Amino acid sequence: MSARPIFVVAGVGNSSGNGGASARLFAKAGYNVALISREGANIHKFAAELKTGDTDAAAFPISAYNYKEVQTAFRAVRAHWPNSEIRVALYNAGIGVWKPFLQTTEDEVDLITNTNVKAAFAFAHEAISAFKAQTIDEERGGKRGTLIFTGATASMRGNTTTAIFSATKFGLRSLSQSLNKEFGKENIHVAHVVIDGGIATDATRARIGEEWAANRDRAISPESLAKSHLYLANQDRSAWTWELDLRPAHEKW
Amino acid sequence: MSARPIFVVAGVGNSSGNGGASARLFAKAGYNVALISREGANIHKFAAELKTGDTDAAAFPISAYNYKEVQTAFRAVRAHWPNSEIRVALYNAGIGVWKPFLQTTEDEVDLITNTNVKAAFAFAHEAISAFKAQTIDEERGGKRGTLIFTGATASMRGNTTTAIFSATKFGLRSLSQSLNKEFGKENIHVAHVVIDGGIATDATRARIGEEWAANRDRAISPESLAKSHLYLANQDRSAWTWELDLRPAHEKW
Amino acid sequence: MSARPIFVVAGVGNSSGNGGASARLFAKAGYNVALISREGANIHKFAAELKTGDTDAAAFPISAYNYKEVQTAFRAVRAHWPNSEIRVALYNAGIGVWKPFLQTTEDEVDLITNTNVKAAFAFAHEAISAFKAQTIDEERGGKRGTLIFTGATASMRGNTTTAIFSATKFGLRSLSQSLNKEFGKENIHVAHVVIDGGIATDATRARIGEEWAANRDRAISPESLAKSHLYLANQDRSAWTWELDLRPAHEKW
Amino acid sequence: MSARPIFVVAGVGNSSGNGGASARLFAKAGYNVALISREGANIHKFAAELKTGDTDAAAFPISAYNYKEVQTAFRAVRAHWPNSEIRVALYNAGIGVWKPFLQTTEDEVDLITNTNVKAAFAFAHEAISAFKAQTIDEERGGKRGTLIFTGATASMRGNTTTAIFSATKFGLRSLSQSLNKEFGKENIHVAHVVIDGGIATDATRARIGEEWAANRDRAISPESLAKSHLYLANQDRSAWTWELDLRPAHEKW
Repeated sequence: MSARPIFVVAGVGNSSGNGGASARLFAKAGYNVALISREGANIHKFAAELKTGDTDAAAFPISAYNYKEVQTAFRAVRAHWPNSEIRVALYNAGIGVWKPFLQTTEDEVDLITNTNVKAAFAFAHEAISAFKAQTIDEERGGKRGTLIFTGATASMRGNTTTAIFSATKFGLRSLSQSLNKEFGKENIHVAHVVIDGGIATDATRARIGEEWAANRDRAISPESLAKSHLYLANQDRSAWTWELDLRPAHEKW
Repeated sequence: MSARPIFVVAGVGNSSGNGGASARLFAKAGYNVALISREGANIHKFAAELKTGDTDAAAFPISAYNYKEVQTAFRAVRAHWPNSEIRVALYNAGIGVWKPFLQTTEDEVDLITNTNVKAAFAFAHEAISAFKAQTIDEERGGKRGTLIFTGATASMRGNTTTAIFSATKFGLRSLSQSLNKEFGKENIHVAHVVIDGGIATDATRARIGEEWAANRDRAISPESLAKSHLYLANQDRSAWTWELDLRPAHEKW
Repeated sequence: MSARPIFVVAGVGNSSGNGGASARLFAKAGYNVALISREGANIHKFAAELKTGDTDAAAFPISAYNYKEVQTAFRAVRAHWPNSEIRVALYNAGIGVWKPFLQTTEDEVDLITNTNVKAAFAFAHEAISAFKAQTIDEERGGKRGTLIFTGATASMRGNTTTAIFSATKFGLRSLSQSLNKEFGKENIHVAHVVIDGGIATDATRARIGEEWAANRDRAISPESLAKSHLYLANQDRSAWTWELDLRPAHEKW
Repeated sequence: MSARPIFVVAGVGNSSGNGGASARLFAKAGYNVALISREGANIHKFAAELKTGDTDAAAFPISAYNYKEVQTAFRAVRAHWPNSEIRVALYNAGIGVWKPFLQTTEDEVDLITNTNVKAAFAFAHEAISAFKAQTIDEERGGKRGTLIFTGATASMRGNTTTAIFSATKFGLRSLSQSLNKEFGKENIHVAHVVIDGGIATDATRARIGEEWAANRDRAISPESLAKSHLYLANQDRSAWTWELDLRPAHEKW
């Protein structure tokens, strides 16, 4: 019997959003789960919650999203389950910033670039290195692994208050495309999911309201996002997707 | 007990490709199947093959893809199952043409425009009219219906020998985007699937060879395309996709 | 002394817009001008107005934009100045339609497709055939000729009321890209100009108002569009442009 | 008589490329020229060469492209000509890198991000701040100033060896789009020029060969790029361009 495959996710917050729902769904689908997040207390608790039946889960807290910390966390994941294979890695970390360009400081440029792009480079580097060392998984579509990046409306077009946010999301999108092209021939699948709308998390629920959050025509369900990741992970080698957009039925776009 | 929903597909050929595989998969998933195609003999035989157990299927042959014939065929589908609801419609018809621009005649422009775009307008008109008359299907994601168009590499960029082909595929892509935006608020889901690579059909199998067709890293499996359509049909209202690209792992793009 | 080169423009209306301003500017820049339009009376008058000094001009009225009539008109242009060379051709004809998809009839689909795309195929066919028969013009950038298509916001994205309009403008954009790629190696320059905003013509002046039309931050000056065409025509072989967007300073996009 | 306007360019190298040609052309067109570059010796010499007749020019060397140094250099430009207005600013700095993703180190990520994007943020911040403090220049199109960024093929699509390069160029492209949208209403024009092909500089001349560099169908002339910048700077408020692509006639794309 082969060991359970590992699903690594960076960007989990308090587990009420996309990262959390994906962790739950992949756990249910037979994966062990590695949680990378700045919120140490939350992900330790969440890892404990995920450990039921055959599912193993572990928390890999970091203090900030930067190249070194993400690199270290990812290597700790590999060391934690030395006999398992990392089959799916989701980079869901990111800071959304909407502010006038001239009010953006150098420190903000650094913070946002580090979180939205630079740490993603480290994450991708580690994930692809892990995938390359693994055999092709014939059970899950004939791939060595699937690496998914979370995009946003700002990944597709710049706008009046998104000079820095959009620049980093464009960068991440491009990274995902380059990697898809570079590593496809090694059966490594890289995908980019454009989330075009508000996700119903604890934070948006509090800010925008329960009514909105409960309206499935207007608020994106984290569980639906999770399903799209599982779908991408299960796509086979003969027809896989680089980019997928997701938005609610009534979203104006 | 509610009647089985209907899956309508235009563009089935000899059933060895995308349209055929989709018909088979939707039949298995609980749909009755309506086949629209210029190949009358083939689809009558194919409809008979699909009719097993609870599945009903019927053929609606046309002599050419043009506005009137597609309109008539679609209306015949609705009349054939007066108490059922059309929940998924796939426009998979299309002529691929690669030739020097100056060799393209007016007749070819007409034929290709009719097949690749104009008949798709009629198909969309009928599908959306049918969807609007139906209730929201809470079982299948809270939608009135899902309309899917088949795109190609040429949908995304023009090239040296695709002046007419690409112009029509760009047109179809735009149509799908406009319709997604116009009818989302009525819970009608419109999607565009960009197939970027060669599909292993009887025709390409004969032309390119068995070895290629059997290589899942290089040839697209029609069954995998069919799965992407079922995935789109099952996406719920809170997070649905307009556009999805599909290509084999080793495809250069 | 070599004969004056010819500038052909299709889509001139009452000469108060893009086509008219371009005709005037190219006349001033040393070209003879051929006017193709459905408005016979207007262009005969306009041709007479353009004929001053060394400039020759002629009107080639058609009854509708379709493949045959545009083909015939373009051939008449060549016959009219048998010893001159057509160096710049601008396809500025087009019908803008904003209406709900389900209200669009087959006749409208035909009319708009004919005008916005199909006649453009004929125009391009004739222009490129003419260019190919000519030598490289070392004086004007080392090209055989420049073919320019007029695009719109709808060339770039579909929207709620642009199902048919946008489908045709996407098609035209794709055509221009394919032709740029196919004929660049023969030093034939094909460009696409995306006009993203309202142009101050007699018609919009009447509809939206004089104040708007006089506001250069909000209304596009036809003369400025004309300059962009002359710029494209003068670009040299070492650095030419496929696509250029133009909008007023205060346009929201 | 008003003071001569200033043209600032970052990224001049040995002055044989795009930045150098643009400096020469803007000097000829009536601008004083500020040169920002890491190559101090070169730009001091080049500034001396540019100072002829009425033209003033000055060098502002930096040791590296990073936020602080570019900020400081730009402020020095303003202090150098306290009574003049900066009307055109060109960010032409950039490092092109083509290498396998897994061979890219964190230091390279930092260097390339700093040069290609982060320093561009500082440049844009200073340029736009300067523009905002100026009146609208009615003589030059009714704008406060024009800010131009240099893009590349990698700005438009990621590829097998461009994971980091393309990520930064996508980021720069997005920045230019956000700024165009944010500052258009203040009559500040921001543009992005996509250079899709090899430029005939001293470096490429040495590497690829004289024959290629002399072939105007294949090698991009820096002078032609310079002209496109002057064209953009001269576009008026009623019809200005965000993005312009430039490539040689025989380039395959």
